[in-house]
Amino acid sequence: MTPTESSPMPEPMAAPPQFHVYDTTLRDGAQQEGLRLTVTDKLRIAALLDELGVGFIEGGWPGANPNDTAFFAAAARGELTLQHAELVAFGATRRVGGVAADDPLVAALRDSGAGTACLVAKSHVGHVERALRTTLAENLAMITDTVQHLRAEGMRVFLDCEHFFDGYREDPRYALEVVRTAAEAGAEVVVLCDTNGGMLPSWMGDVVSAAGAVGVDLGVHCHNDTGCAVANTLAAVEAGAMHVQGTVNGYGERTGNADLVSVVANVELKLGWPVLPPGALTEATRIAQAVAAITNVSGSARAPYVGTSSFAHKAGLHASAIRVDPNLYQHIDPARVGNDMRMLISDMAGRANIQIKGEELGFDLSDRELAARVTDQVKAREADGYSYEAADASFELLLRSELGQLEEYFSVLHWRVHSHSAAGAPSETEATVKLRARGDVQIFVGEGNGPVDALDHALRRALTPAFPAVDRYELTDYRVRILEGPVGEKGGHGTDAIVRVLIDTSDGTRTWTTVGVGSNIIEASWEALSDAYWYGLLHDVATPGPAGRPAGTDDDVLTVAASR
Amino acid sequence: MTPTESSPMPEPMAAPPQFHVYDTTLRDGAQQEGLRLTVTDKLRIAALLDELGVGFIEGGWPGANPNDTAFFAAAARGELTLQHAELVAFGATRRVGGVAADDPLVAALRDSGAGTACLVAKSHVGHVERALRTTLAENLAMITDTVQHLRAEGMRVFLDCEHFFDGYREDPRYALEVVRTAAEAGAEVVVLCDTNGGMLPSWMGDVVSAAGAVGVDLGVHCHNDTGCAVANTLAAVEAGAMHVQGTVNGYGERTGNADLVSVVANVELKLGWPVLPPGALTEATRIAQAVAAITNVSGSARAPYVGTSSFAHKAGLHASAIRVDPNLYQHIDPARVGNDMRMLISDMAGRANIQIKGEELGFDLSDRELAARVTDQVKAREADGYSYEAADASFELLLRSELGQLEEYFSVLHWRVHSHSAAGAPSETEATVKLRARGDVQIFVGEGNGPVDALDHALRRALTPAFPAVDRYELTDYRVRILEGPVGEKGGHGTDAIVRVLIDTSDGTRTWTTVGVGSNIIEASWEALSDAYWYGLLHDVATPGPAGRPAGTDDDVLTVAASR
Repeated sequence: MTPTESSPMPEPMAAPPQFHVYDTTLRDGAQQEGLRLTVTDKLRIAALLDELGVGFIEGGWPGANPNDTAFFAAAARGELTLQHAELVAFGATRRVGGVAADDPLVAALRDSGAGTACLVAKSHVGHVERALRTTLAENLAMITDTVQHLRAEGMRVFLDCEHFFDGYREDPRYALEVVRTAAEAGAEVVVLCDTNGGMLPSWMGDVVSAAGAVGVDLGVHCHNDTGCAVANTLAAVEAGAMHVQGTVNGYGERTGNADLVSVVANVELKLGWPVLPPGALTEATRIAQAVAAITNVSGSARAPYVGTSSFAHKAGLHASAIRVDPNLYQHIDPARVGNDMRMLISDMAGRANIQIKGEELGFDLSDRELAARVTDQVKAREADGYSYEAADASFELLLRSELGQLEEYFSVLHWRVHSHSAAGAPSETEATVKLRARGDVQIFVGEGNGPVDALDHALRRALTPAFPAVDRYELTDYRVRILEGPVGEKGGHGTDAIVRVLIDTSDGTRTWTTVGVGSNIIEASWEALSDAYWYGLLHDVATPGPAGRPAGTDDDVLTVAASR
Repeated sequence: MTPTESSPMPEPMAAPPQFHVYDTTLRDGAQQEGLRLTVTDKLRIAALLDELGVGFIEGGWPGANPNDTAFFAAAARGELTLQHAELVAFGATRRVGGVAADDPLVAALRDSGAGTACLVAKSHVGHVERALRTTLAENLAMITDTVQHLRAEGMRVFLDCEHFFDGYREDPRYALEVVRTAAEAGAEVVVLCDTNGGMLPSWMGDVVSAAGAVGVDLGVHCHNDTGCAVANTLAAVEAGAMHVQGTVNGYGERTGNADLVSVVANVELKLGWPVLPPGALTEATRIAQAVAAITNVSGSARAPYVGTSSFAHKAGLHASAIRVDPNLYQHIDPARVGNDMRMLISDMAGRANIQIKGEELGFDLSDRELAARVTDQVKAREADGYSYEAADASFELLLRSELGQLEEYFSVLHWRVHSHSAAGAPSETEATVKLRARGDVQIFVGEGNGPVDALDHALRRALTPAFPAVDRYELTDYRVRILEGPVGEKGGHGTDAIVRVLIDTSDGTRTWTTVGVGSNIIEASWEALSDAYWYGLLHDVATPGPAGRPAGTDDDVLTVAASR
């Protein structure tokens, strides 16, 4: 931490010898209202969590639902390769009155292919007697049997004590007995869960210390019902917990789980303990936003550290001081979490970002005037709802247009879509596309499941005579986001709202993303779709070096100006 | 607190003899990105804050901008009548080298009509020297002069020490000197501000205690940059602060201010100190949501205490236990903050969730076989991509269909959509809907910004002759999610993927949500759209008691079977 940063740091605590960063986005995070993850979503999120450098990824509850079972099967088949993280299967202790070795859900843990199991067990007398409806002794026997069985099968075992803090208030002796039983059976970490989220930070210390006296490594799992999930997690760490559970973007049931990125950023940047691989924290903002793109449940713009507003300044008072020294008005350098300071007068990234981005794509934007012109273009289009952060291909088309290095492989004369349904029958959709390519006018019709599919088929057929390469292009993802009106105004919120469409296209080797915006979802999709073909052709047909001369020489290949 | 509630409460602390709940939504909250308040907005929000029973409402900075000046003028003219709260004018200490009595901004405070002024002053050596560019002595003189002047004019004065915690780390002697200077000049409360929001709860206590040694009443003002604003505020209270500043919905610059409702609910329900008028806290959810409606910046669905998801349950494991005792899975009775427990319907849900949800809607699902049949229906449709978690209205239509209590107000004969664009021109879209309603066949065309807008216009026109009430229905939100193929399979990922559409509709009084699914986005939107009208008519035209007989008697009103 540089001396000008403004975070006071009293006597630093010593870091524990080992520290577990344990993510449960794929299991407890998926309890979030409105969030549903497919197997592919889970695989993509797991890869991002691994990039973030978490130690453990709780992938779900195999055997409890087909989706989670399929995720572990896919991971076991090699569809997930982890560099840092260990995959964990979540499950429960065996059934009341059963035997762990014969329990089908315990078998699902064993068969999951994960090296570590995290078992949930009751530790609250009222829950044992009234929800589980068994005896206190049987609950302990279930823990012993299940932990010992999985350990004997060669798995690492963690144990989540559900409702631990509430249980400790009701009957501290029994709650601690659960911790001791799990430890003696071979659980490596016993995790104290504030399942209902009712704790305050000042109440955590004594309870965690009491559990620590058992002599096992402790973890903590908090929910945000008092608005203190992050603080409660830190209080447990300060009282000796060495394992923190949480989720990206604080996803979770009710008020959510502890936001794992906030917890880890506080541990690294405030307590000064490096708990992620070196440099990993600087990817936190990108990763949190990428996870939100997959779940389609946005993180808060005001999320600590990684929110889009988290280092944005509006107050005039602040703005003038920031000119003197940015650190006077920010608690850390936002680059440490991969975020940026933003002044809200200029709503978007500055010239420096654009220059860096251009360099990434191989363009020289060191000319200040050129960089400023491109920045102005990007700002104007982002104000209209475009987003180039994910849409690299559309950004390159825009950049080449400004540089005069964009060729028009085809020009569209018109497109039409017709969709209809008679009562009871499935809908039918057809599209017509008329365009000129390599001098010839083509008109083709395509059918599809919906308007964009039909347009894709028609466009592909119309381009094929001139550019047979388009046959390899496949649309691999299609995402739609409804935008509201300009900030501060009451914009369209219903079916007349502005729509942003992102399309991913693959040629089998590489994938690119394009963006379209409009109040008509078909028109916005068409823009992203035609950009997708255009970008593909740019790299297939003519591949001029970014600074070199165009390779296309056909008379009908025109430099574009007005249409972009 | 009833004994079954799950919040542990260790040795209760004694409440201070007086406690200030101080709201700064109208001043610091208005620094939130995207939030802009008119004078009318401010008057309405102030009235709501007064209903919440806060002690102080910081209305803005008179003299610093015309909007805030106008707000104080309107309040002084009697456009704002406060029952509980005192209006506070925010301002700064006089200019460097000036005299408080002659300072125009100090005059604006005097002339504001507010009985209390809250002055911001620097307390951080680096900020005095580098941002304010004056001497440490002059900064103290500015405080003394301004506080004494306003006190002599008969105002109560509070003083905000900007960057106090960072300043204390840099030079504790000077930071405490500022507190002492303000107290000696007559400030009633000195507020310690974590302006950059970089503090952790465990760092608060020592600093607040050191300031407390000066012997003046202390307040605290926190920002959420570490995700600890609420916890930091509580830590200060536990160290002796008797005045808490915050904003409704946690509005504020960057990551926001401390959420005042969370702070107050924790103080009342967890620390056990009554700090609002009796019963006022039960209005908290309504008031927080009403403020969000005025600002047009939603609070988080996951906001502690007052969020729409804050007492929503999804896991089947939880749902069965909730039937035993709701307090097993909630940290307080949600009625204490005016919120409700909600069961979410999802593929993770079991029969228990469905039964509770049915009861919420007024249906008797105690028949196990019926409940099982509805559960199977929900699971089958969710497997196809439907999601009833948010779509209460579609869930009720499904439930009524299973119960034989669903009437068909209209039957659609066909719909058609046509969208086209010629190169360079904006797209045009028209839709045709042909339906039968109350025995008459109607066919109408509608134009729109896109296919759904056009269909909405055509459907509305076709229904109006039979049901003029539809004129009041407004589509207020439209959300699209691209789904992948069935669980575990590689489904369509591109434009042939399955699409889920959610539509919110309002009749001006209440809002309902419907869902549609399909590979054609137009068809999926159509399903959600026609469900939306259907549900509206169900409650407008015929309102049979849930268990009663249908009220509709037209011959052409048929019970629906196959179409659902």
